[in-house]
Amino acid sequence: MTNLNPNPIHTPDCAPPDILRCAYMELIVTDLAKSREFYVDILGLYVTEETETEIYLRSFEEFIHHNLVLKKGPVAAVAAFSYRVRTPEDLDLAVEFYTQLGCRVERRTEGFVKGIGDSVRVEDPLGFPYEFFYDVEHVERLAWRYELYGPGALVRLDHFNQVTPDVPRARKYMEDLGFRVTEDIKDEDGVTYAAWMRRKDTVHDTALTGGDGPRMHHIAFSTHEKHNILYICDKLGALRKSDLIERGPGRHGVSNAFYLYLRDPDGHRIEIYTQDYYTGDPDNPVVTWDVHDNQRRDWWGNAVVPSWYTDASPVLDLDGRPQPLVTRHDPGELDVTIGADGFSYTRKDDVEKGFKLGHTL
Amino acid sequence: MTNLNPNPIHTPDCAPPDILRCAYMELIVTDLAKSREFYVDILGLYVTEETETEIYLRSFEEFIHHNLVLKKGPVAAVAAFSYRVRTPEDLDLAVEFYTQLGCRVERRTEGFVKGIGDSVRVEDPLGFPYEFFYDVEHVERLAWRYELYGPGALVRLDHFNQVTPDVPRARKYMEDLGFRVTEDIKDEDGVTYAAWMRRKDTVHDTALTGGDGPRMHHIAFSTHEKHNILYICDKLGALRKSDLIERGPGRHGVSNAFYLYLRDPDGHRIEIYTQDYYTGDPDNPVVTWDVHDNQRRDWWGNAVVPSWYTDASPVLDLDGRPQPLVTRHDPGELDVTIGADGFSYTRKDDVEKGFKLGHTL
Amino acid sequence: MTNLNPNPIHTPDCAPPDILRCAYMELIVTDLAKSREFYVDILGLYVTEETETEIYLRSFEEFIHHNLVLKKGPVAAVAAFSYRVRTPEDLDLAVEFYTQLGCRVERRTEGFVKGIGDSVRVEDPLGFPYEFFYDVEHVERLAWRYELYGPGALVRLDHFNQVTPDVPRARKYMEDLGFRVTEDIKDEDGVTYAAWMRRKDTVHDTALTGGDGPRMHHIAFSTHEKHNILYICDKLGALRKSDLIERGPGRHGVSNAFYLYLRDPDGHRIEIYTQDYYTGDPDNPVVTWDVHDNQRRDWWGNAVVPSWYTDASPVLDLDGRPQPLVTRHDPGELDVTIGADGFSYTRKDDVEKGFKLGHTL
Amino acid sequence: MTNLNPNPIHTPDCAPPDILRCAYMELIVTDLAKSREFYVDILGLYVTEETETEIYLRSFEEFIHHNLVLKKGPVAAVAAFSYRVRTPEDLDLAVEFYTQLGCRVERRTEGFVKGIGDSVRVEDPLGFPYEFFYDVEHVERLAWRYELYGPGALVRLDHFNQVTPDVPRARKYMEDLGFRVTEDIKDEDGVTYAAWMRRKDTVHDTALTGGDGPRMHHIAFSTHEKHNILYICDKLGALRKSDLIERGPGRHGVSNAFYLYLRDPDGHRIEIYTQDYYTGDPDNPVVTWDVHDNQRRDWWGNAVVPSWYTDASPVLDLDGRPQPLVTRHDPGELDVTIGADGFSYTRKDDVEKGFKLGHTL
Repeated sequence: MTNLNPNPIHTPDCAPPDILRCAYMELIVTDLAKSREFYVDILGLYVTEETETEIYLRSFEEFIHHNLVLKKGPVAAVAAFSYRVRTPEDLDLAVEFYTQLGCRVERRTEGFVKGIGDSVRVEDPLGFPYEFFYDVEHVERLAWRYELYGPGALVRLDHFNQVTPDVPRARKYMEDLGFRVTEDIKDEDGVTYAAWMRRKDTVHDTALTGGDGPRMHHIAFSTHEKHNILYICDKLGALRKSDLIERGPGRHGVSNAFYLYLRDPDGHRIEIYTQDYYTGDPDNPVVTWDVHDNQRRDWWGNAVVPSWYTDASPVLDLDGRPQPLVTRHDPGELDVTIGADGFSYTRKDDVEKGFKLGHTL
Repeated sequence: MTNLNPNPIHTPDCAPPDILRCAYMELIVTDLAKSREFYVDILGLYVTEETETEIYLRSFEEFIHHNLVLKKGPVAAVAAFSYRVRTPEDLDLAVEFYTQLGCRVERRTEGFVKGIGDSVRVEDPLGFPYEFFYDVEHVERLAWRYELYGPGALVRLDHFNQVTPDVPRARKYMEDLGFRVTEDIKDEDGVTYAAWMRRKDTVHDTALTGGDGPRMHHIAFSTHEKHNILYICDKLGALRKSDLIERGPGRHGVSNAFYLYLRDPDGHRIEIYTQDYYTGDPDNPVVTWDVHDNQRRDWWGNAVVPSWYTDASPVLDLDGRPQPLVTRHDPGELDVTIGADGFSYTRKDDVEKGFKLGHTL
Repeated sequence: MTNLNPNPIHTPDCAPPDILRCAYMELIVTDLAKSREFYVDILGLYVTEETETEIYLRSFEEFIHHNLVLKKGPVAAVAAFSYRVRTPEDLDLAVEFYTQLGCRVERRTEGFVKGIGDSVRVEDPLGFPYEFFYDVEHVERLAWRYELYGPGALVRLDHFNQVTPDVPRARKYMEDLGFRVTEDIKDEDGVTYAAWMRRKDTVHDTALTGGDGPRMHHIAFSTHEKHNILYICDKLGALRKSDLIERGPGRHGVSNAFYLYLRDPDGHRIEIYTQDYYTGDPDNPVVTWDVHDNQRRDWWGNAVVPSWYTDASPVLDLDGRPQPLVTRHDPGELDVTIGADGFSYTRKDDVEKGFKLGHTL
Repeated sequence: MTNLNPNPIHTPDCAPPDILRCAYMELIVTDLAKSREFYVDILGLYVTEETETEIYLRSFEEFIHHNLVLKKGPVAAVAAFSYRVRTPEDLDLAVEFYTQLGCRVERRTEGFVKGIGDSVRVEDPLGFPYEFFYDVEHVERLAWRYELYGPGALVRLDHFNQVTPDVPRARKYMEDLGFRVTEDIKDEDGVTYAAWMRRKDTVHDTALTGGDGPRMHHIAFSTHEKHNILYICDKLGALRKSDLIERGPGRHGVSNAFYLYLRDPDGHRIEIYTQDYYTGDPDNPVVTWDVHDNQRRDWWGNAVVPSWYTDASPVLDLDGRPQPLVTRHDPGELDVTIGADGFSYTRKDDVEKGFKLGHTL
C-alpha cells in the first residue's frame, strides 16, 4: 500500500499524439456465429462489412468504418484498443512517444484491419495493445435512419475500461499520453482503486480499474435514453438469455450515467451506457469517491456482483499471444467492500454500516 | 404438501359484494413525521387532509378522498385493506357474506376514517382486516395538474399483496368474493406459492403470497412510465437513503410490469409499478409460472433478496391488536429457489442450473 | 341548435348486451399490399393470419385472434365496429335490443370473419355497422415476446371514434346500450360537439364526434410510453412518409392521453395513444370541456388541422354498400374555433383571444 | 443572390482565441419578476445568485457560476453572447483578433458580471456583442442532486442562434474565429439560409440564421431525455400558459435533435433540446440540407410557424444601445418555403408537392 512507485514510467520528452477519442476495439472471439448473434441479432450493431473470419460493426451515429471488429481466433482476448488521432502526423508522434518509452512499436501504412489506413500499434508500458490511426474509410452516419433502429439501439462507442495492477502508475503514463482524469475512487490511506480518463468531452474514453492486469474490463456503447437499456434486458429475458446480464441496470455514482453490464458468448464484458456529463473544460472538477461509499458504483446501493470485480478478458501482444498478468499488490475493491472483510456505508457517519448486500444475504 | 385442505372456507349462499377495485390502505406508522417525509416529500403523494395523528394521501389520477391513510400508532401494522364496491347496497351483501362465514363484522354509517361514509369492516377468514365502502368524498382529480407532478409522480393505487400460509385455501375464498386469478406460481408437485387476483381490468387488485400470515406484503402505486420509477431511485440516492430500496428496479415475469420495492421508515413495503396488461375478459388466459423459473419474479434473472420473502407487516384485528400468525406448511419459495437447497433455471432444459445469484455469491 | 331532438331513438325494454370492450375493426382497403406495408412494416402490428384478400392483425398484449381486419375491396370504408360481450347469451340480447330498435340484424353462428364464432351484426340507429361476439379463437399473448417488439410497438386496441350529426341523440342511444360518458365538449348554448364513452375502465371504447355521418373518424392503438409514439414519427420521417402524419404528436386535453394521428394509404385515420386514466367507478366524474378552450384537443394549444375535422371514412351497410350521409345541423367545431369565424382562448378571461393558430398564420 | 460578397470580413493574421464552448448569455428583460417566474418557477433553472436587478442561473450539470444572466433593463435585448476560452492567455488573442478586425473591444479584469473574472467584450463584425473569458467562479455541479430535479430538468446550455443577413459572409468570419460548420441549409442557386457551427463536440455552439440582423434567434438548453421536454409542455398547459409554446415539440432534421421552442415573457426565444450527435472529429461530415426539403427543420414535416422565421431579439452594443438592423438581400427561408410563393417536398421527385401545411390550411 506504499506509493513509492518502484517502477515509474518515465515521461517522454516529445509531445504525445493528439488523441480525439476511443474509436474501436478489435476483439478475438472463438465462435464467430455466436458472437454475431449477440452483437448483431441481439444488440443490433450495424454490420459495415464481414468476411468468413471477421465482422466489422458500427453504432448508429458513427461515420467511420467501425467501432468493433470481431475476429475469429483460438482464445477470447483483445487484440487492440484503438484511438483516433487528430492528424496523420500524430502517428509520427505516436511512434516517437512509444519508442522513447522502450515499447514495441509496429506501423502499417495499409492498416491492421479493413477500413483503416496508416496505423501504429504498440505494446504499451502497461502491456496493452494500443492502436492509433487517422486515415479511415467514411461510411453513412445512420443517425437519421430510424427505420433501422431497434428499441435498444446503440448510437455511439463511449469508452474502454482496462484492468491494471497499479492505478497511480498507469494514470501518470496516461496523463503523459494526454488523458485527463475526471473521477476516481480512493480510500483514506491513499490507495487508488480506479480512475476515469478522457480525451473527448465525456467522463471517459478509457478507465483504469485496479486488478491483476493487463486485462480488458469492458467496452461500452451508448444509447439515447434509459428505456433503450431496459429494453435490452427485456429482450434477453424473452430470448431466455437473461444470464448474459451480469450487473444492472442501474445508475452509476461515478459518471452519473445509467448502465448495464452484459457478458458476450466468450465472456467479454459489454457495458450499455447513457447520460454522463460534459467534461471539456480544462478545469473540469475531478470527483473523488470513497471506496467505502456504497453508492459510488451503484447510486442506488445495489450490490456489485463479485464476478464484476474478478473477471476480465486477456489482451494480446502484437504477435497475438496473451500477455502475462501482473498481480495487484494494493488492496482490491472487492475485498475492502464486500463480504466478511469489507464494509461500505450509505451515510458516512452512520454507526451501523448501511451495506445493502450485507443486510440481505 | 397435500392439498387435502383440512380447513376449507365454505362458500356463502349469498352473492358477494360487487367490488370495483382496491381503494386505500390504512397503515399504522410509529412516527408520523418520518412517514410524512417518506410518502409526501420523497414519493410525492398528494395530501388531501391531515391532522395531528393522521395523514390522508392520494395519487394524481384519483378522485376519491384518499388511497392511503397514515395513522400514528404504537406498532407498525395494517388496520385495513379497503375496497370500493359498486353500490351502497353492496354493503348489505358484504355484511351477509361475512356473517355467513362466521366472521366478525362491524358497520359504521359514518365511516371509520375521514372522507369515507357508510363502511363495513370485517376480520376475514384469513385474518385480514378487510373494508368495503361506496360512499366517499370526491376530490379534484389532479391528472391535468402537471405543475404539481414530480419526476416520479405516482398516478394510481394499483394493488395490495397479502401473505397467507395456504394459498389455495385463500384463493378459493377470494374467488367466492368475486376475484379472478390472472397469474400464479406453482411447482411440479402442485404446490401454489402465490396467486394474483383482480377485480378491475389489471393483473391484480390483490395478490396472495405464501408465507406465515396474515401479514401485508406490500401496497403498490403506479407511475406512467419506467423513467419515473428510475427517478425515485435516483432521488433516494441523492438523499443518501438508497438503503430504502429493497429490490429492483426490474421487470417482473409475473404481470410483465416494471417494478421497484421500497421499505418505508417502519419497514412497510411499497411497490412502485407500471405497465401490466388488460385482463378484463372473462376468459382472460391465466399464466402459470414454474417456481423454479428464474425469470418469474424478475424477468432479467436478477436475484430476489431474501428479505423480500421473509419480511412483511402485521395486520390488526378490529380492536387494533395484531393478528397472531399461522405458519405455512407448504414449502417456501425462498427455500426452493435460493441458496444451498434451492435451484432455479433460466432455460428449462439446461443441464447446468442458470441461477444467477448462485453463480456470483 | 335546438335540442328538441325531433327524431329520438327509443329505449328498448330489454337489457342491452353486456359489452366488455371494443375488440376489432373490419377495414376495407383498396390496395392490400400498400396497407400491409403501413400496418405491418411501418406500425409493426402482428399478423395472426393472412390470405390473398384479408390480413388479420393484433397488438402485442392481445390474446384474441385479431384487433384489425384489412379486407381488400373496391372502396375504402369500415365494414364493422366489433365489440366483445361477456357471455354467449349476450348475443341473444343484442338481437332483441336491435330488433326492438327496428334495425336490420344478421346473426352468423360461424362468424363473419376468421377467428370469430357466433356473431351478430346490425345496422345501428345511427347507420353504423356494429358487431357483437363472444366466441373467439385464443392466440398467444405476445406481451413477453420482447424480441418481436419494435421501438414503436402497439400493445392494445384502445378505442374507436365515430362521426355522427346529432351527438346528444347518439349519446342517448349509446347510454341505452350500456356505455357511460367520461368526457364531452360543449358550448355555452348547450351544443354538444363530441362525447367520449366507455365500457372498459379507460376513457373510451368509442367516441362520438359531431359531423356529417355515419362515418368512422379513427381507430386507436396504444403504446406503453410516449417515446414509442415519437419513434413512429421518426420512422415515418426516415421513410420519407412524414406526410402520413396528420396531427400531433401532442397531449390531449380530453382524456389527458398522449397522441398522434396518422392517415393510412386509403386515408383511414389511425390514432396512436397512451396514458389516459382509470374510469371504472360508477360515479367517475364527467369532464366537460368548453369548445372554445384552446387546450381541449391539444393541451399545448397546438392547432388542430382542418382535415382532422373534415375527413372521415365511409361506413358500409350489411350488404357492403356505403351508408348515405346525414348532415350535421348544429354548428361544427371547426367553424366555431378556427379561422375567421371562430375563436378560442387559452385563459378564459383574457381580453385578447389566445388563439395560437390565429397568431401565427 | 449573388455571392460577390462585396463587404468581406478580412482574416486577421493572428491566431483566434481557443474557444471551448458557449458558456452563458446576458439577457436584458423588462420585468425581472415575470422572467424569474418563467426561468426559475416554470423551467426550473437553478439560481446561483440574485440581486434586485440581476438573476444568475445555471443548469444542473454546470460547474461554472452561471449559464444565463437576467438583467433588468428598459428594452428586451441581448447584452452578451459569452464563450469560455481554454486559457487566460486566450483573452490577449481575443483582443488582438478583434482589434485587427477594427472592432470595438473592451476588457475588464474584474469582469462584466458576477462570478466571471477577466473578460473581453467586443462588438463583432456582424454587430453582435461577443464575450470571452476563462476566469470563473466554480459552483457545485448539481448533476447528482436529483432531489432538486424537476420532471423537465435542464441539464446543460447547448447553444446560441444568431440572425444575420449574409450567412456566407458571417460563416467565413466564424471559421476564422475557429468554428467549424457541421450542417447547413442551401438551395440549388447556392443561397445559404442557415449554418450550424461548433467548438465543443456537439452539432453547434452557435448557428447563423439568415435574416435581418444582428439579432438573437434563440438560446438552447438541453434535457436528458425527450419526455423531459414533453413535460415542459404539459406544465405550461397546466399553468394555462400554452401560448408560450411557439413551435414543437418535434424532431429536427438538422442536428437530429428533439426540440421545443418557447417564448419568454419578453418574447426572447428559448429552445429546449436533446440528443444530437458527436462531431468532434476534424473530418466530421458536413450535412447540407435542401431548403425545399420539408423535413429539414422538422423531420416529421410539421410546419414551421412564420413567427419562428420573423421574430428575434435585438442585440446591444457595448454602451447598451440596440444595434441597428441590416436587411437580408438573399431570399428568405419563409418566403421560399411557406405559403403562396414557397414550396417544399417530402419526397424529392414527387410530382405533387408534399407540403403538409399547404395541404391543410
